[in-house]
Amino acid sequence: MNVYADNAATTAVSDAAVAAMLPCFQEFYGNPSSLYTTGQLAAEKLAAAREVFARGLNAQPREITFTSGGSEADNQALRSGAAMGARKGKKHIISTKFEHHAILHTLQALEKEGYEVTLLDIPPDGVVTAQQVRDAIRPDTCLVSIMFANNEIGTVQPIGEIGDVCREAGVLFHTDAVQAAGHLAIDVEALHIDMLSMSAHKFHGPKGVGVLYARRGIALENVIYGGAQERGKRAGTENVPGICGAAAAFAEACANLEKNAAYVTPMRDKLIAGLSAIPYSILNGDPVRRLPGNVNFCFEGIEGESLLLLLDAKGIAASSGSACTSGSLDPSHVLLALGRPHEVAHGSLRLSLSEYNKPEEVDYILEVLPGIIQYLRDMSPVWDELEKGHRPHLI
Amino acid sequence: MNVYADNAATTAVSDAAVAAMLPCFQEFYGNPSSLYTTGQLAAEKLAAAREVFARGLNAQPREITFTSGGSEADNQALRSGAAMGARKGKKHIISTKFEHHAILHTLQALEKEGYEVTLLDIPPDGVVTAQQVRDAIRPDTCLVSIMFANNEIGTVQPIGEIGDVCREAGVLFHTDAVQAAGHLAIDVEALHIDMLSMSAHKFHGPKGVGVLYARRGIALENVIYGGAQERGKRAGTENVPGICGAAAAFAEACANLEKNAAYVTPMRDKLIAGLSAIPYSILNGDPVRRLPGNVNFCFEGIEGESLLLLLDAKGIAASSGSACTSGSLDPSHVLLALGRPHEVAHGSLRLSLSEYNKPEEVDYILEVLPGIIQYLRDMSPVWDELEKGHRPHLI
Repeated sequence: MNVYADNAATTAVSDAAVAAMLPCFQEFYGNPSSLYTTGQLAAEKLAAAREVFARGLNAQPREITFTSGGSEADNQALRSGAAMGARKGKKHIISTKFEHHAILHTLQALEKEGYEVTLLDIPPDGVVTAQQVRDAIRPDTCLVSIMFANNEIGTVQPIGEIGDVCREAGVLFHTDAVQAAGHLAIDVEALHIDMLSMSAHKFHGPKGVGVLYARRGIALENVIYGGAQERGKRAGTENVPGICGAAAAFAEACANLEKNAAYVTPMRDKLIAGLSAIPYSILNGDPVRRLPGNVNFCFEGIEGESLLLLLDAKGIAASSGSACTSGSLDPSHVLLALGRPHEVAHGSLRLSLSEYNKPEEVDYILEVLPGIIQYLRDMSPVWDELEKGHRPHLI
Repeated sequence: MNVYADNAATTAVSDAAVAAMLPCFQEFYGNPSSLYTTGQLAAEKLAAAREVFARGLNAQPREITFTSGGSEADNQALRSGAAMGARKGKKHIISTKFEHHAILHTLQALEKEGYEVTLLDIPPDGVVTAQQVRDAIRPDTCLVSIMFANNEIGTVQPIGEIGDVCREAGVLFHTDAVQAAGHLAIDVEALHIDMLSMSAHKFHGPKGVGVLYARRGIALENVIYGGAQERGKRAGTENVPGICGAAAAFAEACANLEKNAAYVTPMRDKLIAGLSAIPYSILNGDPVRRLPGNVNFCFEGIEGESLLLLLDAKGIAASSGSACTSGSLDPSHVLLALGRPHEVAHGSLRLSLSEYNKPEEVDYILEVLPGIIQYLRDMSPVWDELEKGHRPHLI
């Protein structure tokens, strides 16, 4: 059986999204900046796509900027909030230790440019509190950026409460909603979100398309300079096919949000229950306040990469953490932030499900995984030590 | 008859490119950063695409970075060359007055950051000389960026000679080859090009994919920070479908370069001859040293936008200049740089052909266009004045 259980890394493109893209390649291929009919038809498709995202987020179309992906949207949001702050002499930014690298590395770049960054600690349940944010806000704070849901452990942050704190303090609030969009309901008005990033390929849209929501009044900084596309704030001919595919996928996801969650959550919970029964395993992140499809465990005495390769041999596609860092030998910064020791963080497994998964796939994972873990532990000299009671690590 | 004559703005995606993309949406949809088979199959496709671009440019695969488009590639090239210069205390950059806005606006941003920029004048034939570059180079010059072929008037620059001058002076040389790639032969070794930008949708590939060639040894700066994709220099999940489509289109273009040029050039020359016969018209740019498909004229006493709308009504898609600035009321900066007066620059028309055009389409344009111009001139009070001999402008 082949099981794709890495939907947090990327997803298969939906039939509706492919159908939306296809006519844009050879029929509606005009440049939306062009005056003639072929261009204007493309411009209309672009406008319709913008409407879809605006409606899905309870925003206005002019508050939607299309980018090449979630990373670019994150970069642009942070740079824009930082520049707005600098103009008022405010150069302090608050974020967390378990953000995606698109946030953390941009913040490092901003630090080199003279900004000061406070990264909040992550509580053991993987849920940052609004009180932490309140305590960190200073008179010179210009921006708070906290992810909607973590990409590795799937924990959902109290975005509405954090939004309230920021609004009250007059501080801009950005959320990286790359993992949440299309999976959780998002109302930027109700949640007091000022900027939000998302990525189409995380909800069965195509790769190469991101969306940046920025509340009216926010002056976006260019990450890419050039032509006057996207109100002059994002240069480059619009990726019309990709954007249309993204909109189709988002419309589908929004229409089926509750249905999909009701279908996926029991599969998640069955996996969590089953994997919890494996000795010396621990679930990372709160069991309930997490994305409907996210399961993330540490298995003591296991090396994550070997686990993934053996799972792959059984047809199961899973990850140890973020795909964006899989070339790295360092343990997950998210699990370290959660307080897992290095040795334990190395033995992590993320299974991320979507509505494309089937209950029997969960059964298959539960059938296969315990044996693989036992096999790896049997081979591991570390595990011998651990079994003798030298288990300084974790559980 | 419907005639798409704006291939410099964007092109229809080729069958081969669509065929290359399709399996990436629902079959090879894995994240290329992932360890498991589905991800590695995507990584192999990415590697194969990189090979195609390397081979087509006479470069090495590791010298190829995929971006979201030509604009991003231009931004990254300039920022990288500028940063390398700054580390040696060299902060002078040479470019030209008729570059694309992706270059000019990035240079403006760099000026704000303390760089000094010299923009070379454009000779009347639209071809910058190597001598101009040589004369402008100073001891503190770190970067020369000169487009391979202009996007409005299509003139091809003496890139090899400029490359020689830069190499001799020890100055990095970047060329924006967005209009040239896939249409002209490019050998980065022979031409002494250090960095080169291209965009897939200008040669029948998909929108949303660009390529930055950067010679080994050049330290690229991130435009987008985040994950470790593209050797850490361009964050964001790779747009595998788009990149595969781009590679298919580029392979096709490279294989048919001479055949396509031999097919398109006579159509171009027929248009040039036919439009030259219209009274008070002038060809912009050298008649020979131009892209095989580019025709660009000024018609005195004409307002470009009206011309485009009337052409559109006859089924002809054309532009007055760059699509990227079509929202703007300003006349083309390219035509102004060429020395055309404001009034004349407003009356410009670009017809850009590709191998998808047919000779009978050219005949149709030549049949329709003179009448439209006469109609517009008959309506124009300015034209009355011009006809009376008050023609301070142009021809």
